[in-house]
Formats: sequence, structure tokens, C-alpha cells
Amino acid sequence: MTYYVDLNSDIGEGYGAYKMGMDEEIIKHVTSINLACGWHAGDPLIMDKTVKLAKEFGVNVGAHPGYPDLLGFGRRNLAITPEEARCYMLYQTGALIAFTKAHGIKLQHMKLHGGFYNKACADKALADAILDGIEALDKDIILMVLSGSYIAKAGKERGFRVSEEVFADRGYNVDGSLVNRSLPGAFVKDPKDAIPRVIRMIKEGKVTTAAGEEIDIKADSICVHGDNPHAIEFVKQIRAGLAEADITIAPIQDFIK
Amino acid sequence: MTYYVDLNSDIGEGYGAYKMGMDEEIIKHVTSINLACGWHAGDPLIMDKTVKLAKEFGVNVGAHPGYPDLLGFGRRNLAITPEEARCYMLYQTGALIAFTKAHGIKLQHMKLHGGFYNKACADKALADAILDGIEALDKDIILMVLSGSYIAKAGKERGFRVSEEVFADRGYNVDGSLVNRSLPGAFVKDPKDAIPRVIRMIKEGKVTTAAGEEIDIKADSICVHGDNPHAIEFVKQIRAGLAEADITIAPIQDFIK
Amino acid sequence: MTYYVDLNSDIGEGYGAYKMGMDEEIIKHVTSINLACGWHAGDPLIMDKTVKLAKEFGVNVGAHPGYPDLLGFGRRNLAITPEEARCYMLYQTGALIAFTKAHGIKLQHMKLHGGFYNKACADKALADAILDGIEALDKDIILMVLSGSYIAKAGKERGFRVSEEVFADRGYNVDGSLVNRSLPGAFVKDPKDAIPRVIRMIKEGKVTTAAGEEIDIKADSICVHGDNPHAIEFVKQIRAGLAEADITIAPIQDFIK
Amino acid sequence: MTYYVDLNSDIGEGYGAYKMGMDEEIIKHVTSINLACGWHAGDPLIMDKTVKLAKEFGVNVGAHPGYPDLLGFGRRNLAITPEEARCYMLYQTGALIAFTKAHGIKLQHMKLHGGFYNKACADKALADAILDGIEALDKDIILMVLSGSYIAKAGKERGFRVSEEVFADRGYNVDGSLVNRSLPGAFVKDPKDAIPRVIRMIKEGKVTTAAGEEIDIKADSICVHGDNPHAIEFVKQIRAGLAEADITIAPIQDFIK
Repeated sequence: MTYYVDLNSDIGEGYGAYKMGMDEEIIKHVTSINLACGWHAGDPLIMDKTVKLAKEFGVNVGAHPGYPDLLGFGRRNLAITPEEARCYMLYQTGALIAFTKAHGIKLQHMKLHGGFYNKACADKALADAILDGIEALDKDIILMVLSGSYIAKAGKERGFRVSEEVFADRGYNVDGSLVNRSLPGAFVKDPKDAIPRVIRMIKEGKVTTAAGEEIDIKADSICVHGDNPHAIEFVKQIRAGLAEADITIAPIQDFIK
Repeated sequence: MTYYVDLNSDIGEGYGAYKMGMDEEIIKHVTSINLACGWHAGDPLIMDKTVKLAKEFGVNVGAHPGYPDLLGFGRRNLAITPEEARCYMLYQTGALIAFTKAHGIKLQHMKLHGGFYNKACADKALADAILDGIEALDKDIILMVLSGSYIAKAGKERGFRVSEEVFADRGYNVDGSLVNRSLPGAFVKDPKDAIPRVIRMIKEGKVTTAAGEEIDIKADSICVHGDNPHAIEFVKQIRAGLAEADITIAPIQDFIK
Repeated sequence: MTYYVDLNSDIGEGYGAYKMGMDEEIIKHVTSINLACGWHAGDPLIMDKTVKLAKEFGVNVGAHPGYPDLLGFGRRNLAITPEEARCYMLYQTGALIAFTKAHGIKLQHMKLHGGFYNKACADKALADAILDGIEALDKDIILMVLSGSYIAKAGKERGFRVSEEVFADRGYNVDGSLVNRSLPGAFVKDPKDAIPRVIRMIKEGKVTTAAGEEIDIKADSICVHGDNPHAIEFVKQIRAGLAEADITIAPIQDFIK
Repeated sequence: MTYYVDLNSDIGEGYGAYKMGMDEEIIKHVTSINLACGWHAGDPLIMDKTVKLAKEFGVNVGAHPGYPDLLGFGRRNLAITPEEARCYMLYQTGALIAFTKAHGIKLQHMKLHGGFYNKACADKALADAILDGIEALDKDIILMVLSGSYIAKAGKERGFRVSEEVFADRGYNVDGSLVNRSLPGAFVKDPKDAIPRVIRMIKEGKVTTAAGEEIDIKADSICVHGDNPHAIEFVKQIRAGLAEADITIAPIQDFIK
């Protein structure tokens, strides 16, 4: 049996004069990028430049819409309605499509950011509104969502291609959600622990939660970071570990049906 | 000989809790709308709702990108580079296309707003960058531009469909630019003057400037306003005047080659 | 025994080209205004003009800081930290003080807006941070807060002058909080009900909740609206009702110790 | 004769999750800081933290208001009116005063940023409006302005304390303005040239322009940068050079009358 996995990373997160992340470096090591769309991070010049960079490196581009909260980097909960969620997602995704189209490539996927991502995992009405929006826009767009979440299931039922995403460096709760960043067990930082754990997610579809229970998990894509040299090093080690375990790293669109 | 003209109006200019203009009223009287894209005015919910409204009324939708200056309603000059102009236009146009596509209609045209519009008339490098952007995005998009401006000529040379726009209520300078709003002769407010003047622009391709010279002008579309009951009344009078003069009011895409 | 009450209203809520509310009208009928500080509404020109207006009419000015959410008019919940709450409040209050100082008047009070107001009623750590901020800035600033809320009590314990605010047109829960706008009993719109109810709050310190219980309430100031001609009419009726009941309408600083 | 000079640097230029500059390092080497006020850079948490830092290091704090253009870092020309200039400056300066007051220190000066700074040098009506604003707010605030500019002269005539600022690393035109960053002669980067040049400005009141003319200049404060280790090193060399030339480095408020 052949195993496939995609590696995705959030990039294009600067704004105007502000730089963030090592985009030119991390892009060499992933198969998909989630590109900030100007609300929580990113701006039109950065979007243009990053789409160009992704094309150069043959990396697939996804939209990464966030809350209208540049000051909070889109991480803070904001009580938006399903209607707002649908329209905010469409606006940002459309803005990015202008750049992918201008550069002659196709948008591969859509992944929500931060607080927006979390809310769409838990809030069914909001998740449904997001699906309505993408369905009306372009059903070829792959959904990149938290493995096992409501939006993952609902997306599949509607006939979307869904990439269930896992986190190499984050602890899980028994319901498949991530352990809150402020709680013990939130992070799995040592590659010695993280790599076999990710391999097991891919091959066995299992992960051990922070509290020690074993749960089912599907790993189509692994979210990795490119903020600093240490993060880049971690990604290289994951790639090496996956290769050793005979897992093929490939863009989601190549193996997701 | 049959004469055609389009009537266009800026709408969707509210923001969040703020209302602006009589959109539901003016939309009944025009053939094309220029829809604000969230930077100088407009927001995703308003864009969604206004595209739906335009579809209902069979009115054609254009993108109306502005400067990133909500506080100044996009009217103040801002010294942006050609590169910024191209990317700002693409971002906003793409954002709107998400809504037109979601509602199953096609974006008809692109018209810049306020300070951005003025700058693109005068600054060749910036105008060229705008044309590069639209060309890379979708050459079917019609350019709605100031009649006789550089961007109008350059657009035609590149093979774009160009709608040369005139203003029923504004005075002209000898070079075809509009008399600055703060100067005498800036406005032609009396319908008794404005209507024959517009008819002459369409039929004879001539207009008398504020200073009294006669210049050539091409009138594919007339820009009208829907801010208040008086403006709506003015549009109705223009429609009646055009009908009386046997000029057919039709969407630009029906008669522009 | 003499009874006093202040009437307060949120004003200065336009933004750039956007108008909101009938400021020039409502200001004639109130003793205190809560002036938006540019984050959820308001801008520096409006702040300047409104402070001038308040001075002309002898009405006292308060700061009205809100969340950084112009798109949501500051009404949506946003998960900010106590540290952020303190700094966001200081920033906006300081910005307004520049205008009161420039016009030679003193800031009378501070009242939070919308989601920020609600959060500071319920979240003790955040309320304490707000009090820390005002205490460090200027302890002469009166706190305008929900009657009976934690921040009201904590403010008094620290020695602040506290104006406990009631709503003429809103229903109450048994814990003294307002009935959510989406639930039955949220509004008391008929002046025939609202006026005797407000008089009872002032004279007897009692109000009947939406569910029919009787609770204690302190009414130092009544919040009224100036959005439309109907709202203005309602305020006039309240004023007439209070006068008839021998209740003196006076600025809070005249009777709060 | 004793010579005095102040060293000033722009700091607090991050925003939310974005970092900028080596604030903790540069603050050790200057006597005055210009603190961004949230419009072109900076946010309330950064303002709070930076005021605290300045207090710790005994460095004097100035407000550094910019255009409402975070995307352009306040560097792009924006056509604002004198009225807008006055109100934008007051808003931002007041916001910062909330933090200086909360930390028990006094705002020393006000220096405009980027495009706003440049416009206030050249546009007399706008410069006068800025002076009107500061005069109404607090005439003890020192004006930090381009040496020899209109606003410097007009400020002195009104009785303000004015700190005429020079740039160690920038070339001058014959009218005392800075050579545009895009032109030859814009920068004087070699400390071997820059240091004796600055010493001459202080002691002789003369500088040689990029074109070779000798002009008069007054040097109350030298603007230095703390963006990177190289910039920090340059400041240390300037300090050493000034010490060797028996020039006392002191906060402007200690020697400006």
C-alpha cells in the first residue's frame, strides 16, 4: 500500500513594511501554501509576489481567509454570523483568485485562519454557510479543514474534495480538537515524539491525545511552520522521517478524490 | 443611424452600519452599476446584496476599486506606485468577482473610483500597470474610463473593449478633463442645460468646455448619481430627454465592440 | 427629597463621508454625551466638531471607547485580554481628551461601547484592568456603567465617582443585565410603559424584569437615543414625564459624589 | 562655549504581531524617542510598553503622528486638508498622552512622521493648522521639526520651544530640504563623512549640500535609526565622535529655551 501526505504552511503573512516568516525558505519544503488574503495579514503586493513564488517552485496555492482583525492577527474570537462568514470568506478568496488567475495558475484549496478556522470547526450553521459560499463560487476548490471536524464531514457529504489536516506539533483532545495553546499538552515539540506520531496518523489513522486516549484521525495534510530557522529544520526532519517510512509527499490535488 | 448610450452609477457605497445612497431606487434607472469593493466604501455583505439586486433588475455589474482610504472615501490623492495600482485593482476586482460568480453572473466592466480614477487618467505608467493587470486577469472585462483619456486610448490599442464615459453634470476643460470641483464651471446642474448637452455629446461627439471652447468627446456611457431624491429625479429627466431624442439606452456590452 | 437624574446619549457616530444620528437635535435634550473615539465609529474631525457642539450647548462630554471593529460597529464580541482592554480604552480616551483640552473643557466621564461595555460588566479581570487604566490616567473621570454591575461596585470601592446607568427602552434580567436584543422582552418601546418605569427606578430604586420579578436598581443616568425623529420625540416625552414627577435633570457631575 | 545636542529616534513601530526595529537597544543610545501613535505604525500595547521602557531608561518621549496609512507606513503623500492635519495630529498626540500620563511622565515633544512630516515643512496652511492644534492642546510641547523649515520659523514666532532637527545620514538640497531618497546624494552612509559633517552642523551651523553649496543649518537634535545592528553601531560611533568633539548629548528640554 502506498501512503500519501501533503505538507501545508501558512505564508505571505507580512503587511506593508512588515515582514513575517521565512517564505522563500519554507516554500521549498512544502507542497501546498495557505496564502493570507489581506484581512488578518497579507496585502495585495505580497499576494502577487507569493503567488509568483509558488508558481516558480511548483507549489499549490490555497486561500487563507481570516477575521477582519489585523491588530489581533486573526487569532481572537470574533462573534460573526454565518452570513458574515460566507461573505468574508468569498471576498478574500476572490481577491486571491485574481492573482492566481493573473499568474495563470488555479487556486487549489481554501483553509480558514486562526479564530475563523476554529469557529468553522465548532459552529455548524457557520460551517454550512462557508460550504454554501465555496459551492456557489467553485466546487473544484479543495477544503483544507481540521481532521474529523464537522466541516470535514459536511463537506464530503456535499461532494467536495476535502483534505483533512493534522498538526505535527500540537496536542489533541479526545474529540479531535486541538488542546488550547494555554493548557498543558498543547505542544509536541520534540521531533523524536512528533515524527513517529505523524507517521502513525498517516499509516494507522490513530493518535494518542494529551490525556492518553487513543482516537481515530485522518491525515491528508500536515500543517508545518516557517517562522524561524528552527521551524524550517523541524520540517526538514519531518520530510526525512516520512521518506524513511515510505510515505510519499505530494500535493493534495494529486491524491484526494 | 441608431444611437446608443449606457447609464452608469456608483452604488453599494455603505459600510457596516453606515448607509449611503438610494441603491434600490437608482438601480431601476441605469444599465450598469459600479460596485464599491470594500476599500474606500462597500463591504462583503453589501457587495453580496448589491450583486443580487443587480441580477434581479438585470443591470450589469462593474468593479469599482478605490484607494485604501475609507476615512477619505477614496477621494484624496494618494501617491501609489504603478505596481501598487495594479495589485490594488486586482485585489478588489477579484473580491467582487467572487460575488458575481457566486450569483451566476459575469463581471461586465471595471471603473476606478475617485482619486484612483483621476490618477489613472493622467499617469501613463500607472494606467499601463492597470491595463497589464486587467489583461492578465480577464480581457473580456470592459474598461469604463474618462472619455478621451490616455487610458481610453491605450486600452483600445491593446484590443480592450473600452467604454468612454461622460458626465452629465460636470464641466469640461479643453483637454477633456473635468473642471475641478472647487472651480467655477465645475457643475452643470440645470437639466435644461445638461440634457441637450449630453444629447449633443452622443449625436455630434462635441461638448462646449467651461471656458467656451468646443472639443471632441465620445459618449458611450453617462455617469449619473443616486445619492438623493433630487439626483434620482435628474436621472429620470435624462432618460426622458434621451428617449425623446431617439437615443437607445442599453448596457455597454450590447453595443461596444 | 429631591431626585436627580442625568440623560446620556451616544453621539458623534459618523465616519468620514458617513453620517449617523441626529446629533445637533439630540444634544439639546441631554445633559451628557458619550462621544465615539474613532475605533467602532467617529473620526478626529467629527470628534473635534462634536466637542465644540457640546461646549456650545453646555453638555458634558464623555469618552466612548469601542472595539477595533468599524465593520461591526463595535457590537460584536471580540475576545480581548484585560491588558488589551486597558490599553484600548486609554488610547481612545486620551485621543478624545486632546479635543476636550483643545476646546478648554474637561472630560466628564468614560463609558464603554457595545461589546466592550458588555464584556466589562461580566468579566472581572477585564473590568479591573479598565479601572487600573482610568485610575492611572485621571481619577476625576466619572465611570458611566451598567447599574448594579461588577464594574460599578468595584469602581465605588476604589473611590471613583460612578454613574449607574439605566435604559428607558430595554428589558432587564433578574441579575440586572439587559435582555438580549434577540429575545422577547428585550424592548420597552411604548412611552406609556417606559416613562413610569424609569420614574420608579429613580424614586423607588426598583424595576420589574421581563420575567416579572422585582429587582433593585440605581438610576443616576438614563441612556437615550438620537438616531431618528421618533427617538428624539421619545426623549422629549421622557423629559416631560420626569419634570411632571419633580425629578431634576442635571449633569451627573452636579450630583454624583 | 558649550555645545549641546539631542539624539532622537523613531521607535515603537511594530503593530500587533509584527515587530520592527531594535527598540530595546537603540533606546540606550538616544535622549529622545518619537513614538508611533497607531496610524502608520504602533498600537496601544506597544505604546504602553514603550512609554514604560522610556521611563526606565530616562529617555524623553515625543508623539510621532502619521497619516492613516498603515499599508504605506505613512510614507506616501496623501492630500489632506489643514483641518484634517490638525485633527489627525491632535487625535494621535492625545492617545499617546494617555500613556505618558498613566506612567507619570510628561510628553516632551511632537514630531510628525514620513509624508506628514514632509507636507508640514512645505505647506504653510497645513503647518499653521498643526501649530494651532498644539497651541490649543499644550504649548509646553516642544516641536521637533526639520531645521530651517517654515514650521520651525512659524513655531518660534508663536513662542514655541522648537527643536531643529538634522539628519546624520541624509543629503541636503540648497533650500535645506532633504534630497529625495531616489536621487543621487540622498545618503551619507560612511561614518567617516557623516560624523565630521554633523559636528560641523552643531559647531559652525553649516552643511555642504549634495550639489556642493554651503548652507546654514541649526542642529538641536540629530535623527538616528535603530532598525538593525549596523544602525545601532552607527549611533555608537556618532556618540563617540560627539564626545571627542566636546559636544554634550542631552535631552532637548534641558537646553532648548
